[in-house]
Amino acid sequence: MTELRTLKVALLGCGNVGAQVARILIEDADALAARTGAHLQLNGIAVRNVNSKRDVELPQELFTTDAETLVKDADLVIELMGGIEPARTLILSALRNGACVVTGNKALLAQDGPTLYEEADKAGLQLSYEAAVAGAIPILRPIRDSLAGDRITRVLGIVNGTTNFILDQMDSTGAQFADALAEAQRLGYAEADPTADVEGHDAAAKAAILASLSFHTRFALENVHCEGITSVSAADIAAAKDAGFVIKLLAIAEKLTDADGGEGVSVRVHPTLLPREHPLAAVRGAFNAVFIEAENAGELMFYGQGAGGTPTASAVLGDLVSAARRLVLGGPGRTETTTGHVPALPIDSAVTSYYIGLDVADQPGVLARIAQLFAEHGVSIEIMRQTIHTDAASKVESAELRIVTHRASEAALAATVEAVKGLDVINSVTSVLRVEGV
Amino acid sequence: MTELRTLKVALLGCGNVGAQVARILIEDADALAARTGAHLQLNGIAVRNVNSKRDVELPQELFTTDAETLVKDADLVIELMGGIEPARTLILSALRNGACVVTGNKALLAQDGPTLYEEADKAGLQLSYEAAVAGAIPILRPIRDSLAGDRITRVLGIVNGTTNFILDQMDSTGAQFADALAEAQRLGYAEADPTADVEGHDAAAKAAILASLSFHTRFALENVHCEGITSVSAADIAAAKDAGFVIKLLAIAEKLTDADGGEGVSVRVHPTLLPREHPLAAVRGAFNAVFIEAENAGELMFYGQGAGGTPTASAVLGDLVSAARRLVLGGPGRTETTTGHVPALPIDSAVTSYYIGLDVADQPGVLARIAQLFAEHGVSIEIMRQTIHTDAASKVESAELRIVTHRASEAALAATVEAVKGLDVINSVTSVLRVEGV
Repeated sequence: MTELRTLKVALLGCGNVGAQVARILIEDADALAARTGAHLQLNGIAVRNVNSKRDVELPQELFTTDAETLVKDADLVIELMGGIEPARTLILSALRNGACVVTGNKALLAQDGPTLYEEADKAGLQLSYEAAVAGAIPILRPIRDSLAGDRITRVLGIVNGTTNFILDQMDSTGAQFADALAEAQRLGYAEADPTADVEGHDAAAKAAILASLSFHTRFALENVHCEGITSVSAADIAAAKDAGFVIKLLAIAEKLTDADGGEGVSVRVHPTLLPREHPLAAVRGAFNAVFIEAENAGELMFYGQGAGGTPTASAVLGDLVSAARRLVLGGPGRTETTTGHVPALPIDSAVTSYYIGLDVADQPGVLARIAQLFAEHGVSIEIMRQTIHTDAASKVESAELRIVTHRASEAALAATVEAVKGLDVINSVTSVLRVEGV
Repeated sequence: MTELRTLKVALLGCGNVGAQVARILIEDADALAARTGAHLQLNGIAVRNVNSKRDVELPQELFTTDAETLVKDADLVIELMGGIEPARTLILSALRNGACVVTGNKALLAQDGPTLYEEADKAGLQLSYEAAVAGAIPILRPIRDSLAGDRITRVLGIVNGTTNFILDQMDSTGAQFADALAEAQRLGYAEADPTADVEGHDAAAKAAILASLSFHTRFALENVHCEGITSVSAADIAAAKDAGFVIKLLAIAEKLTDADGGEGVSVRVHPTLLPREHPLAAVRGAFNAVFIEAENAGELMFYGQGAGGTPTASAVLGDLVSAARRLVLGGPGRTETTTGHVPALPIDSAVTSYYIGLDVADQPGVLARIAQLFAEHGVSIEIMRQTIHTDAASKVESAELRIVTHRASEAALAATVEAVKGLDVINSVTSVLRVEGV
């Protein structure tokens, strides 16, 4: 066998994922060398405190607090520190020094991706980030490469395991949000401060990345309309279940034609009703899945573990092997295509179906008045179902009305809901939720 | 905008998939140019008869019967003729002339892949074949690239839509194989001569390709143990259903340790019982899906349309864009890694669970004798269930015994079944089927 070249690897960060990446680099060194044609030599691991306790036993001499020096001498830099700084500066420094970069930093990519991509393009170096979206699931490479000859029309993703676990708990046990969250925290599926997950911020960063690759246009976090799951109630889940739906937090990116005939992409994260027979409805617990519709390929789904140190390390290593092969074979890195130039649409332009729950007076003609109001606002009703609750003496206590609409714009729906609230026969609007997959 | 380079494309074959590839190359020329940095100019389409009727209207002047000349002048050759010759000679000629090749020819790859791969390696050119396995589903690239830093331990695939449709029909309607096949033929899901599909040959070719990429070792068609679905009866399906299983034709490639402690890969295609809650069990009709287990990534599933002209064309175009980008950017093509060197195991070494149906005499002590016999052969029983059928006078007409075993080797199971047949209390062995996912 000929002498193998050595590629120096710098690892930045040694948390959950970083520790597993280090372990695999050491344990699987021979297999990785065989697959890349180079020894991937882990030169050091930059951490804040070299004496912190780690999940994995690693050689103490690898640890350093001097990330800058480590990066300067590396051929391959793996950034798993998270956060904006110093990750951003270190990645830019690595690219300027001629290193390929692998990162899982979705927050940084969603906030300042273009700066990083441009630096990588300028240097002809590979910047890859499969681990940033949906953990172990190969999703970015299939979108970027396998579907490069197709036109993606829509992406629906369950990309946050914490919220999927919570919603799944609520669905299967009838628990309220707060109790399901507490259970998720007890089992380690949710952090002590769950804001980034339950408010949808984590999913929104992933939605921006998915939309950018799918539509060949760079979308930033501010282009993503974001609603979390904190206001989803046990009653919402029960009503959805009763109507044959499950509620999922979806990251959605879809091509739409707005009222003026212009094409654009709506990128959004919100709780969404899905029919129980939809492939995404079966994605349970902390699993992730991404459902893609493309003009030629039709419907595709990618399913797997969306988080966890070892699964996510698999995605990091896949990118690393790919970058190492490129360095060994020579030739420039692959740059992203950004030739799509489709505008991001505001949430008002989004078009979807809606589920609306109303507490109404039980009077003759109420249904007709409500239906009339919907029609006046251009929102067409697909299903309308009324349930009357009576007391022991058969006296009506309340009347509940559930409406599922055909596809309508957010603007039209919002105007309809406003108008409905003004009707004297309406006691309250109990829920307004979007529906996909019908 | 700078002047774009032109890459000359030769298309060999204009069937179902080829016609759609030609259509997309013409209709989406601008988008493809934007994504590759080159005009992909369709120079010609080689066919047997230039006057045949096509599904898609294409410029008549593109058609030629002279494939050799077309290939000689091409930068990119798309081979969709199928069959061994002249496809093999034309692909080799293309690679020798410096063209990258995209093919969907699973039969050729499974039979003589190594010759083609070596020619591509020697020339430093890309030979890609995503369309050869599971139609539109991006599966080969994720295995080869995304999971390149992981160790795949097992692949289970529903990779033949015809047989999945037939088994699905039998499962949902109770139909016999012959009737379900006739229905599949009527609907265009099965060909007039369905042999390649129903005998498992098509799935076996795909199993060889999946195994080769997953285990970094070149497996040929003769390494694949192959059983089709022609002997699966309505009674088998009903019994499986009753026990909570569904029967699927699976392509399986898994790493096993044989009796002597040596590692090997078992590659096989056969009807298989899957628990109804397994993700693959929900794959209905003509859809395909591939389920992968990897050491770090855990469980992954890829789902989509496994056949059809337009979906498969999406996979061809993905490969074409990738090859074109490489030609534009420069640098050598990516070669397959074949450093795994794991031997293919014979079917006797395969280890799985089994479902066995027996028609037995209703006598005291029968269950104990059968259980004893299994134990003597080292096959452990997980579930044993007896159903007694009686006539109107409560006289026993028959006793049916259904056994699900724990994992055991094929050799041990075969010996057990032979021994069981010799028992005087056994009327017949009604079925022996393998079980996965338990």
